Amino acid sequence: MSRSPFEPAHGGNLVWAARLARCAPHELLDFSASISPLGPPPSVLAAIQAAFSSLTAYPDPRYQALCQQLARVHEIDADWVLPGNGAAALLTWAGRELAQHPCWLLTPAFSDYARAVAAFAGQVIEVPLQQQHWPTDPDWAAALTAAIPAGTDLSQCSLLLNNPHNPTGALLSREAIRPFLETFGLVVVDEAFMDFLPPSQQQSLIAWVESFPNLVVLRSLTKFYSLPGLRMGYAVAHPHRLRRWQQWRDPWSVNTLAAAAAIAALQDTDFQQQTWDWLGVAKPDLYAGLAALPGLSPRPGSANFLLVDCDCPSPKLQKQLLIRHRIYIRDCSSFAEIGDRAFRVAVKTGADHQRLLAGLADVLSDGVME
Amino acid sequence: MSRSPFEPAHGGNLVWAARLARCAPHELLDFSASISPLGPPPSVLAAIQAAFSSLTAYPDPRYQALCQQLARVHEIDADWVLPGNGAAALLTWAGRELAQHPCWLLTPAFSDYARAVAAFAGQVIEVPLQQQHWPTDPDWAAALTAAIPAGTDLSQCSLLLNNPHNPTGALLSREAIRPFLETFGLVVVDEAFMDFLPPSQQQSLIAWVESFPNLVVLRSLTKFYSLPGLRMGYAVAHPHRLRRWQQWRDPWSVNTLAAAAAIAALQDTDFQQQTWDWLGVAKPDLYAGLAALPGLSPRPGSANFLLVDCDCPSPKLQKQLLIRHRIYIRDCSSFAEIGDRAFRVAVKTGADHQRLLAGLADVLSDGVME
Repeated sequence: MSRSPFEPAHGGNLVWAARLARCAPHELLDFSASISPLGPPPSVLAAIQAAFSSLTAYPDPRYQALCQQLARVHEIDADWVLPGNGAAALLTWAGRELAQHPCWLLTPAFSDYARAVAAFAGQVIEVPLQQQHWPTDPDWAAALTAAIPAGTDLSQCSLLLNNPHNPTGALLSREAIRPFLETFGLVVVDEAFMDFLPPSQQQSLIAWVESFPNLVVLRSLTKFYSLPGLRMGYAVAHPHRLRRWQQWRDPWSVNTLAAAAAIAALQDTDFQQQTWDWLGVAKPDLYAGLAALPGLSPRPGSANFLLVDCDCPSPKLQKQLLIRHRIYIRDCSSFAEIGDRAFRVAVKTGADHQRLLAGLADVLSDGVME
Repeated sequence: MSRSPFEPAHGGNLVWAARLARCAPHELLDFSASISPLGPPPSVLAAIQAAFSSLTAYPDPRYQALCQQLARVHEIDADWVLPGNGAAALLTWAGRELAQHPCWLLTPAFSDYARAVAAFAGQVIEVPLQQQHWPTDPDWAAALTAAIPAGTDLSQCSLLLNNPHNPTGALLSREAIRPFLETFGLVVVDEAFMDFLPPSQQQSLIAWVESFPNLVVLRSLTKFYSLPGLRMGYAVAHPHRLRRWQQWRDPWSVNTLAAAAAIAALQDTDFQQQTWDWLGVAKPDLYAGLAALPGLSPRPGSANFLLVDCDCPSPKLQKQLLIRHRIYIRDCSSFAEIGDRAFRVAVKTGADHQRLLAGLADVLSDGVME
C-alpha cells in the first residue's frame, strides 16, 4: 500500500493493520490510536440512541443546544465556540488562516497539520526539537525563540502548537506560551488530549481566548469519550473568526448523533473523574512494565499515551506484533524527527497491558528483531 | 431571529419553526425539507446498529468498502468517487474550484451554492430564469446562452447546475447540458434529487464523467433514504480532482455510521423500487389536492417536492400553518426570484397530505391571509 505524503499514518488505519494480522479490524488489540479504553460512557450511548429518531431531520445549523453546553463548561459565551465534524475538520479552517502567513511548527508533529496548511498553499517552517529534550518546558520555547531570525515581524507569522504534545506527551505551560501569544499574528493550539489531565493540572488556553483575539483553541471529544468514528470536536475563538469559518463550511457539518453525544459527554462528570482516576494508576503501571523490558525506554507523558524509545526498528516490531499477536502499536517512522527507533502506545487497562507486554517480550526475545 | 445572507433557510431549520409552533421539533409535520417519508429503510437502520460497535475506532480514511459499493452501482472505478459528510460538504470543495473563474448560476437556486463560491472569493453570475418558464428544457439552456456575452472565453468560466432543479422541480436533459460541458472550463451538477426519478427517466451525468474531466457530479443519499441528520453524500469526478479534494479536507470526513448506512442504502433495491412506486402515486395525489384549493397553483415537478404559486404572502401562510396546525412548509421568500408568492412542499403520504390540505384550506379560508 503506497502512502501519500499526507496519509494519516496515525491510529485510524486499522484496515491496513487488520489485513497484515489476517483478522477483522475489531479483532485487533489497538494500542495505536490514543483512545480511552473506558468509553464510550453509557450516558453518551444512551444519548446517541435517544437521538436516533432525529436522524430524519437536518441538524440545527446553529447547534444551539451543543454551543450552550460548551459555553457552560468553559464559562464563556456560546458564540465563542464552534462545533465541528471532529477537531480535524476545524483544523482545515484553522489551516486556511494559518496559511496566510509563514506558519511555525514544532516537530515532530501530527501529519495532518502539514496537510491543513498545505491545503491553502501555506508555508510551514519546522522547528525540530532535539531528541534529548523533546518538548519539555521551557526547552521548546527556547528552541522556538532561537529558531526565529532576528528582526522577523511575528505579527505576520502564525504558530501551530499541540498541547499536550503528540507524540511525546509533553505538557506546555500556559506561561511559556504567553510570550508567543503576545507576538504572533495567529496562534492555534490543538488541545486534543488536554482533557486527559485532571483540571488542576490542565494548561488549557481556553480561558484566554477573550484576551487574545489571535488565539484559536481546538478540542476533540472523540479521544476522551472513545468515539472517533462519530466525529466530535470544537473550536474556541473570537466570534468574528468563528462566523467566518461558518461561512466557509457547509451549514450541517456536525451530524445529529455527534451533537447529542457531545452534550451528554460534557455533562458526564462521573465519567470524567473515573477517567482521571484510571489514568493516574494505569499510566504508571504501563510505564513500569515497558521500562522493565530490555531495549525499551518509555518517556514520561502527560496524556493518555506513552512514547517508547527502542533499540530495534519499530516498523519491524509493529509488524511482528501484528502478525504474531494481533497487537497494533504506532510505529513513529512517519515522524521524520523520531525515525524508526520509537513507538507510541495508548494507555489502556491491566489485561490489555499484560497482553502488550507479553507480546513485546515474545517478539523482542525471539531474535526476529536482530 | 436575524438571518445572515447565507443562512440555510431550507428545510433544516426546525428549531426556529418549532419555537413558533410552541412544540418540540419532532412534533411538527415537516413539509419543508424534501426528505422521503418512507425511510429510513430497515436495512439501513440495521446497518447503523451493526456499525455502532465500530464507533470506538477511526473510520478507514480511504472509505474503501463504501467507494467499492458506489463504484458497483455506477459502473465506474472506485477512484472516481469520493464520499463526503453530506453533499453540502463536497459542495464546499466544488465551490473552491468553481470560484477560480466567474461562476454562472441559474436562479432561483439553493442558497448554499452562493455560500460555497463566496467562501473562496468567487464571483457568481446569476442568470435569472423567467418565472413563466422556470427551467423547462430547452428554455433554461436558451436563457443561459442568451445571457453569455459574445466572445466570452467559456474555458475560463465555470457553471453550477442543479438537476432536477430545486425549488422548481424541473428536469434538465443530458443533451441540453452537453453543449455547456463541451465549452465551460468546469461544470458542477448537483444531482441531490436525481435518485427520486425511476432509472429510465433519470438524466444523470455520472456516466459521462469519464468523457468530461471538467465535470463534477454531486449526489446526496440523505434525502432518498431519509437520513439528513447522518450526513451522507458523494462526488463523482476525475480521480485527479478527487485526490486534490482529499488533500484539502481532513482524512476522516465521513462518520462510521454514515459510511455503513450508505453501503446498505445503495444495496437496498427493494426500497428504491418502493420509493419510485410511492412517488408515482403520491405526487399526482398531492398535486391534485393543492390544485383544488382556491388561490393555489402547483407546478409539475420531477422530484419529490412541488412548488406552489399562491395569491397570498407565503411567509404569512407559513406562519399561520405553524401556529395553528404545527405544519411547516417552505416559504420561498429567500429565493429572490420567486418572492413571497410561492411555497414548496415535500411529497409525503396520504394522511399527511390530508392534514396539509385541511390546514391550508383552514388558513386560506379564514380571512387571516387578507
